[in-house]
Amino acid sequence: MKTRDKIILASLDLFNERGERNVTTNHIAAHLNISPGNLYYHFRSKTDIIYEIFLQYQLLVDHYLQLPQGRQLTLEDKIYYLESVFDGLWSYRFFHRDLEHYLDSDERLRRDYREFTMRCLRTIREILSRLQDAGILCRVEDGHMKSMALNVWLVVTSWLSFLKTSQGDDGQEITRDMLRQGVYQVITMEIPYLTDEYRDRVLSLQQKYLPGSLDRMSAI
Amino acid sequence: MKTRDKIILASLDLFNERGERNVTTNHIAAHLNISPGNLYYHFRSKTDIIYEIFLQYQLLVDHYLQLPQGRQLTLEDKIYYLESVFDGLWSYRFFHRDLEHYLDSDERLRRDYREFTMRCLRTIREILSRLQDAGILCRVEDGHMKSMALNVWLVVTSWLSFLKTSQGDDGQEITRDMLRQGVYQVITMEIPYLTDEYRDRVLSLQQKYLPGSLDRMSAI
Repeated sequence: MKTRDKIILASLDLFNERGERNVTTNHIAAHLNISPGNLYYHFRSKTDIIYEIFLQYQLLVDHYLQLPQGRQLTLEDKIYYLESVFDGLWSYRFFHRDLEHYLDSDERLRRDYREFTMRCLRTIREILSRLQDAGILCRVEDGHMKSMALNVWLVVTSWLSFLKTSQGDDGQEITRDMLRQGVYQVITMEIPYLTDEYRDRVLSLQQKYLPGSLDRMSAI
Repeated sequence: MKTRDKIILASLDLFNERGERNVTTNHIAAHLNISPGNLYYHFRSKTDIIYEIFLQYQLLVDHYLQLPQGRQLTLEDKIYYLESVFDGLWSYRFFHRDLEHYLDSDERLRRDYREFTMRCLRTIREILSRLQDAGILCRVEDGHMKSMALNVWLVVTSWLSFLKTSQGDDGQEITRDMLRQGVYQVITMEIPYLTDEYRDRVLSLQQKYLPGSLDRMSAI
């Protein structure tokens, strides 16, 4: 592996494990047993590393959210989209933690992230629309669907932060499985729109993802 | 005003305006024309100031979310809850920006914020339940209502971050009015549950909060 790629990978690991605020470029260089000067040759700052990590994250999500051509969407497609997106969030989990700070620090990232968001929102709308074509969801008015797509985005992108801030009173670490439980929350928003034909199947699929945090709420 | 209260107020202003990462206790002292030693006499660290600010925020939200006794909820109550909560988020807007960092830095805050979250979720459930009693929303199964309450929380707490990361390509600042547009998103989740009696009134109320960002989506 090239040094440049090693730096990106090691940075992502360290940011995810320790939090980006606690990791300097010197930590990254030390972790890789390379000199700070060598790291600096590839990346002039942590900001540049974060931007590269974002580009990889963006590629991954765009790849996950590809829509099949020439056939209708299936329930399996829908579950694949949801699980993949949460897995992507898991792999790049440091990124949404202080996103605003990264965007304030880097004009390129600010612009690219905004475009990425708008692209994802458009794709979520397209997925909702094709789930209607497939007879899985009922038809809804276009303005309402835009607003639904935005709520899907808000729930997906905030789920990890919710887990981290509301769970773990017994020192429990957040796991990939807990992150996947966000699928439950997204399906909750779609339940009233399910057609009679698919209703029972989706409700039963949803149970696989029941979040522990909802159990905790009942205990209160 | 007591020095201690002045410090809390000035810190909140500076954190909101400049971002907490960019504000040190020395900045706060200089802003108030007091010595760092004087500030230190009241607060040993920025962490202690943030904790005090959280206590005030919590008091405010608990106050906003009080439920009336001896009468049913009205639509006006519902709108009051939503607007107040978004106004509260506006006044303490730095707080949700790098919340995880604050929680990692302060065990008290971590515990108290977790309890605050659970209390809010319980109250949101109670509000949804009483909107059903009032004939504004249709009855739903309890597990589904818990999950709906959690989605309301996720949408409300992530709305500001969405605005900050997706808007502002023309250097536009986020305003209190834009934050209030989050009301639109919350109502979107409730639309399928509205009773026939209230449907048209709520849909027409919702239009007052139409987010500019949804208009932008159509432009794409």
